[in-house]
Amino acid sequence: MNIAFIGFGKVSYILSKIIRSPDINFTTSGENRSKGTIDLINKANIQVYDSFAEALDGADVIISAVTPAKALDVANNYFKYCNGIYLDLNNISPDTTEKINNLVDNFVDGAVIGKIDSSSPTLYLSGKDAKKLLFLDEFLDVKIISDKIGDASRLKLLRSTYTKSLSVLLIETYDLAKKMHLNDEFFDILSVTEGDDFKEKSLSRINNTLKSSKRKAEELEEILDYFNDDDLKMIKTALDKLKQF
Amino acid sequence: MNIAFIGFGKVSYILSKIIRSPDINFTTSGENRSKGTIDLINKANIQVYDSFAEALDGADVIISAVTPAKALDVANNYFKYCNGIYLDLNNISPDTTEKINNLVDNFVDGAVIGKIDSSSPTLYLSGKDAKKLLFLDEFLDVKIISDKIGDASRLKLLRSTYTKSLSVLLIETYDLAKKMHLNDEFFDILSVTEGDDFKEKSLSRINNTLKSSKRKAEELEEILDYFNDDDLKMIKTALDKLKQF
Repeated sequence: MNIAFIGFGKVSYILSKIIRSPDINFTTSGENRSKGTIDLINKANIQVYDSFAEALDGADVIISAVTPAKALDVANNYFKYCNGIYLDLNNISPDTTEKINNLVDNFVDGAVIGKIDSSSPTLYLSGKDAKKLLFLDEFLDVKIISDKIGDASRLKLLRSTYTKSLSVLLIETYDLAKKMHLNDEFFDILSVTEGDDFKEKSLSRINNTLKSSKRKAEELEEILDYFNDDDLKMIKTALDKLKQF
Repeated sequence: MNIAFIGFGKVSYILSKIIRSPDINFTTSGENRSKGTIDLINKANIQVYDSFAEALDGADVIISAVTPAKALDVANNYFKYCNGIYLDLNNISPDTTEKINNLVDNFVDGAVIGKIDSSSPTLYLSGKDAKKLLFLDEFLDVKIISDKIGDASRLKLLRSTYTKSLSVLLIETYDLAKKMHLNDEFFDILSVTEGDDFKEKSLSRINNTLKSSKRKAEELEEILDYFNDDDLKMIKTALDKLKQF
């Protein structure tokens, strides 16, 4: 079986390491790629072609893992080479998955959840051809949500909406605890019900959110635009606060 | 050692069961108590007096576990019988703890966290006499926050603020997931990072919040009044939503 990567960042690199079988051959191309990407491709020790036309030729599965902004362009440029499954793992909106679905045959909507470099990331899939990727279950946890294109993307949005808003709530209550000089105790008392790793996990969320609040605000704003639902007052407030950090 | 309970609901009952030592004698009174309370007292098999004057006489520790609204009245009525430690475990505001502290000598501000009927509730204490209650560590987890009256209450408010707002955020995102027919998957995908018990814990929070939204809104409103802080936009939004459930 041939699996071809379009885009070779962390996700593709880790997948090429996790999915290890004598029956699977990975390909990609260095065409118009940055030096950093080419270094990573060489580190992965997979088959590299001069052009994507060659790399995708004969692929049973094409994995698109570029950036959200490039996902549609990539599909537009390369769909003509695709004869197998086209799996998109980009953080794109359900609307964009629909557009790609209209271009590409055998399209599967995918989302990798959990840190990709953790021991057990989970791959969520939707679309009528998703079941053809169940063989990946041997290498990582694979869950098929439905045969509806967009469900994997929607689920990822739901998850991201919850965790982003939760992070803003954490920042707000932690700031309040700090004003009262009870910050350590705040984590301590919540660990009783939220689990022993609550402090570590929360501080990591708080720091990540403050460090990239502008990007997170942009992402959350797009998500809210997509949901277009007046009931989402907590999420809307989280967005307002994110913009001010 | 004599420990006297004022108020004998679930908290007092469980404490009388957890704290079991031949050196400790529990007392209370059925004076003006409801039938339900008297049944619980009888079930606990502790020493019962006709009046609180008798029950509190000679007590080394008095534990007040009534209702928040009655905590100050109880202190007013019974402080004259108190020669030992006066431990308040009611869900009261830091302002009320100050008022009780002005009445009662040897006052300790306390909060029980975690389900009181779980195997391991934690007792948070503050006040200069808190360390005199460290002997309870033999029976349940005891943590002394500081020697400042009000810190245990403030910490409990911080905890309650976070969990109440979190519950509203859960309701909001879960409702959104339901609209997309992805409710089960929503819990499933979050369990990857939030822990295996995320679904069970979240559904319990959602149900408890919807079931007693009026009381929770009142509590949260009081807490916000106490904090009096314009930055608390997420919590304020949670309150607005709680009022509408």
